[in-house]
Amino acid sequence: MSTERTVFSTRVGIVGAGPAGLMLAHLLDRAGIDSIVMEKRDKDTIHATHRAGILEAATVRMLTETGVDGRVLTEGHEHRGTVLRFQGESHRIDFQELVGHSVWLYPQNEVFWDLAAARERDGGDVRWSVTDTEVLGLDTERPRIRFTDAQGTPCEVRCDVLVGADGSQSICRRAIPEHARTDNFVEYPFAWFGILTQAPPSAPELIYANSEHGFALISSRSEEVQRMYFQCDPDEDVAQWDDERIWAELQRRVDGPDGLRLQRGPIFDKTVLKFRSYVCEPLRHGNLFLVGDAGHTVPPTGAKGLNLAFCDVRTLAPALVDFFRSGDDTGLAGYSAAALERVWKAQNFSYWATNLLHAQPGENPFHQKRRHGEFTAITSSARGAAYFAECYTGWPED
Amino acid sequence: MSTERTVFSTRVGIVGAGPAGLMLAHLLDRAGIDSIVMEKRDKDTIHATHRAGILEAATVRMLTETGVDGRVLTEGHEHRGTVLRFQGESHRIDFQELVGHSVWLYPQNEVFWDLAAARERDGGDVRWSVTDTEVLGLDTERPRIRFTDAQGTPCEVRCDVLVGADGSQSICRRAIPEHARTDNFVEYPFAWFGILTQAPPSAPELIYANSEHGFALISSRSEEVQRMYFQCDPDEDVAQWDDERIWAELQRRVDGPDGLRLQRGPIFDKTVLKFRSYVCEPLRHGNLFLVGDAGHTVPPTGAKGLNLAFCDVRTLAPALVDFFRSGDDTGLAGYSAAALERVWKAQNFSYWATNLLHAQPGENPFHQKRRHGEFTAITSSARGAAYFAECYTGWPED
Repeated sequence: MSTERTVFSTRVGIVGAGPAGLMLAHLLDRAGIDSIVMEKRDKDTIHATHRAGILEAATVRMLTETGVDGRVLTEGHEHRGTVLRFQGESHRIDFQELVGHSVWLYPQNEVFWDLAAARERDGGDVRWSVTDTEVLGLDTERPRIRFTDAQGTPCEVRCDVLVGADGSQSICRRAIPEHARTDNFVEYPFAWFGILTQAPPSAPELIYANSEHGFALISSRSEEVQRMYFQCDPDEDVAQWDDERIWAELQRRVDGPDGLRLQRGPIFDKTVLKFRSYVCEPLRHGNLFLVGDAGHTVPPTGAKGLNLAFCDVRTLAPALVDFFRSGDDTGLAGYSAAALERVWKAQNFSYWATNLLHAQPGENPFHQKRRHGEFTAITSSARGAAYFAECYTGWPED
Repeated sequence: MSTERTVFSTRVGIVGAGPAGLMLAHLLDRAGIDSIVMEKRDKDTIHATHRAGILEAATVRMLTETGVDGRVLTEGHEHRGTVLRFQGESHRIDFQELVGHSVWLYPQNEVFWDLAAARERDGGDVRWSVTDTEVLGLDTERPRIRFTDAQGTPCEVRCDVLVGADGSQSICRRAIPEHARTDNFVEYPFAWFGILTQAPPSAPELIYANSEHGFALISSRSEEVQRMYFQCDPDEDVAQWDDERIWAELQRRVDGPDGLRLQRGPIFDKTVLKFRSYVCEPLRHGNLFLVGDAGHTVPPTGAKGLNLAFCDVRTLAPALVDFFRSGDDTGLAGYSAAALERVWKAQNFSYWATNLLHAQPGENPFHQKRRHGEFTAITSSARGAAYFAECYTGWPED
């Protein structure tokens, strides 16, 4: 059976117009390398999807120094530290003092918006709202992406290199034969109950709180909108939680001798976020390369997801430029190993931070006390705090 | 039924003449406070019992600066760093460069020997080879220790303060009613197979090796005698292990591209060491105070056991001196909380180091890869390495 398809040709076919895919297309464009990005959602849907909001300094530099947009610096908030709170006892980790750089609070959907605007401004080829996407010929010289475009036209993109930037449910990754990849993962017996509330900030910096009742994260979106989370059962039903019950639960997780009171307001979004730790090995199969969540996902505790995706792009983009400019495939050959070294460090940090801060249902009480010892070792020592700060803000070589 | 008992009176009754008990008696003696130490074993048996061999700088200072003996400095070996080896890849942690101090390799049984000699030199009252020990009246003003001495005479020691320094099987701790204490512990699905061999050192510093076959520790006792361990099943039968099999097992756990070869020699001691993490809370009950293994035990990976015991003594001795000199019981009242803060930090480090370095039978392969990420985060960063070095060599405030 033959299908009438409109065929396009490009050097780099990118599946997924999240931050990783768009940033890669942007960097390739700056080096004169053409790409086509295909995305199943529309721009407004992605923009309306709340995700993480902490950007490492290196991530911020990618936005500001490569000509995407400086909005992160004007609209975002520099956080020169964060607060770890253990059983009501708060300790500030001073990033600037400990490791000499900050992180920025700037929601991931705004990063997406800036990148989408830059692609439009620069004439980038991004196909939104495509359906029926499939990838073919990964092992060939010309992999293909078939899809139906927003107008209903069946299309095929033929490329030299295919990049899977299509998130944790990646169809690109799934196109790699099972015998050719290893799926490494762990699951957690808890999830996050996330809310958005119309209220002023409760604190100037993020508060990561461990309590006997479980973890809570007090975060912010703007002067008027706050983002807060509390550890919950993965099967928690949001319908069972009215505002009063949510505020009581959040408040008791930050209660302490300093009398910290959360600023309350109407709650206009309630979501249960499930997560796991996952790494696909390798991150390359033939002419397919995986970046960001398509290749690896982390629990949200360490705020590593978007930053890791940008790290992948920082490694892959120059490798692609070398390849297309001079045929030098050294960078492409080393991409998976180089990206995975960083990924496993970040996986470890995310796992560690998650376990340090959460209560494990039914666990041996030894561990809660041991974790208090860990909290002390981290917060009462400049070396412990610097190690934590470095993991959180990103490693120097990134 | 009444028993004819010889009654002695002292201010501090100490059960257990291991390093903790003897060091406490020594420090009290220097402050003019009398004590009696009771020990079920004889000196030669304790001296012949192989235990850990790494002393933190603060532990060394307690031996040299309080007039015990300087032998640790002449017979012991200063280690300015240690080696972490992961799947054959070695990385040195330079303690001096990272945290400005060393540790000393000096076997615990030699520490014991020096302390026993100091007690004898200074006329300390130590009763060896006592039997039928029991402790009574913990809640009273005059706790009592009953025992039969080496000559078969029933004795009773009446004291103002009773100190349990009688190791992990402590009869003092067991005399605390169960409702008045919490036993916190975790067990491990592995033990250590320890050997002593007549051979030259394989390396100038300790090597802590993680491999797919499990953990190994390459350590030394002297120029002629080496101490090595490998992770084994807790029920391992030493009779099943001839020298050839032991060397093959140790060697494959350190195999790597650098071609490290263990120096072999006749093996003259083979033991399976079981361990667990344990903390008794609180470390005081009435006029009974627990120090060292009587109050808490750690897995041997972080070499914390003896050093923690000396930390307890450094906290308890001045508190006892204040109490007996001026009636000020502030130090005694705060002993348990102060000691436990350090204990939980060390428990966390010992647990962490154990889990970082050992293979967990039947575990999800994600974790071995994650631990490699942790190894990278520790060894490829001065901050990570400094955090590890600080935990290993002891915290500044100790």
